[in-house]
Amino acid sequence: MVRLMNTAKIRLYVEQPLGPGQTVRLDRDQAHYLFGVMRQTVGAPVALFNGIDGEWLSEVTEAGKKAGALECRTQTRPLQMPPDLWLLFAPIKKARTDFIVEKATEMGAARICPVQTDFTNSERVRQDRLQTHAIEAAEQCGGTFVPPVDDLAKLGTLLDRWDPARRILFCDEALAGGAARDMPRDGGPWAILIGPEGGFSEAERARLAALPHAHAARLGPRILRADTAAVAALTLWQTTMGDWA
Amino acid sequence: MVRLMNTAKIRLYVEQPLGPGQTVRLDRDQAHYLFGVMRQTVGAPVALFNGIDGEWLSEVTEAGKKAGALECRTQTRPLQMPPDLWLLFAPIKKARTDFIVEKATEMGAARICPVQTDFTNSERVRQDRLQTHAIEAAEQCGGTFVPPVDDLAKLGTLLDRWDPARRILFCDEALAGGAARDMPRDGGPWAILIGPEGGFSEAERARLAALPHAHAARLGPRILRADTAAVAALTLWQTTMGDWA
Repeated sequence: MVRLMNTAKIRLYVEQPLGPGQTVRLDRDQAHYLFGVMRQTVGAPVALFNGIDGEWLSEVTEAGKKAGALECRTQTRPLQMPPDLWLLFAPIKKARTDFIVEKATEMGAARICPVQTDFTNSERVRQDRLQTHAIEAAEQCGGTFVPPVDDLAKLGTLLDRWDPARRILFCDEALAGGAARDMPRDGGPWAILIGPEGGFSEAERARLAALPHAHAARLGPRILRADTAAVAALTLWQTTMGDWA
Repeated sequence: MVRLMNTAKIRLYVEQPLGPGQTVRLDRDQAHYLFGVMRQTVGAPVALFNGIDGEWLSEVTEAGKKAGALECRTQTRPLQMPPDLWLLFAPIKKARTDFIVEKATEMGAARICPVQTDFTNSERVRQDRLQTHAIEAAEQCGGTFVPPVDDLAKLGTLLDRWDPARRILFCDEALAGGAARDMPRDGGPWAILIGPEGGFSEAERARLAALPHAHAARLGPRILRADTAAVAALTLWQTTMGDWA
């Protein structure tokens, strides 16, 4: 089994339950990917995960052009939840928004929340497309969990109904914040908020600065693009309070 | 002057000397960008830097279709060199290689070195194109320094002639390394080495592990793409030994 496991180079996210002997039927797209693009055949080992049951080694039992099936053999990893950290970010250009979702998944965010700020140009995001990016990133990074991607919400609305038990680390080079390394180091639920390329508005800055559960942080002396800032802030949080310790 | 400075929203890298009253002539591409794309006219404030003389506030004195000129008014920032940190990385797909150069510049790498490893597919890189990306990133991130981008070099050759005074932080999820937060915290010259997507070869791993000036680090429990790993490793180094402290 170990040899078989080591040869499972393909990881696939599925939405069905996984367990001993469980058969997983593939839809047309999955069958096309696995058998058409990746050229797998009956007997091939594939790692499966569904965000709930951990990772399972499975074997292809049916390989068709429009459908297929896999059978679970053994659990290779338990579900590993990321820490309770959300990433809030203002969507930017399409490619960079996709990158932020990909990076947040790799870096272990538990939830990804696109927010509309005063200086955000986007009126809407393709939530389904972003969720697909999160799934692909989880397949690629070896994670067993897929962070849900929310639909676009107004930052003001989110803050109106914010649970103050979840602290906010907001990164804005125009704000007088301490170095990010000086942020609090105790755990609990957190959210990282990355501003849009144009920064926050004065009203947003004032509101964030007045929140007792929000902490400003500067990410170094240069101005970082939003996607860079997201990875940098997630790195700092994960090494001080998260699962990189 | 301060009001003028605050309105200089455009930053331009030039190769000429900058100083009080200095005239800077623009070439055709720069004139096209500044007057055609950005619609600037005579009298417009532009921030200039050349990687040597800091940042200067200048004013457009001549705006033509194929040429133009600016005159330096006052230095707005001195040259700020990044710490003595190199980023070595194995080039990957074109877009991601571009991103790594952009991110390394934003994050404050002093030199960017594409390396060819045993599992690197690229035989060559477009050094000139990568250097242009570094310049654009410096213009955008507010830096006054542009890291030189080397041409592709073999990792083995680089290690053959490596100065042992420059320590190497190499990031490879397959290596038994400590958490990156446990890396040494004393300064001096360093280089971060990010492996290719397929990882290092066994021979490369053995060689790196045997180097007394090399330190392995793991970047969390998930497998990071090379561009994510570069930003994460640069963040860790900058907050412990660099200019984010």
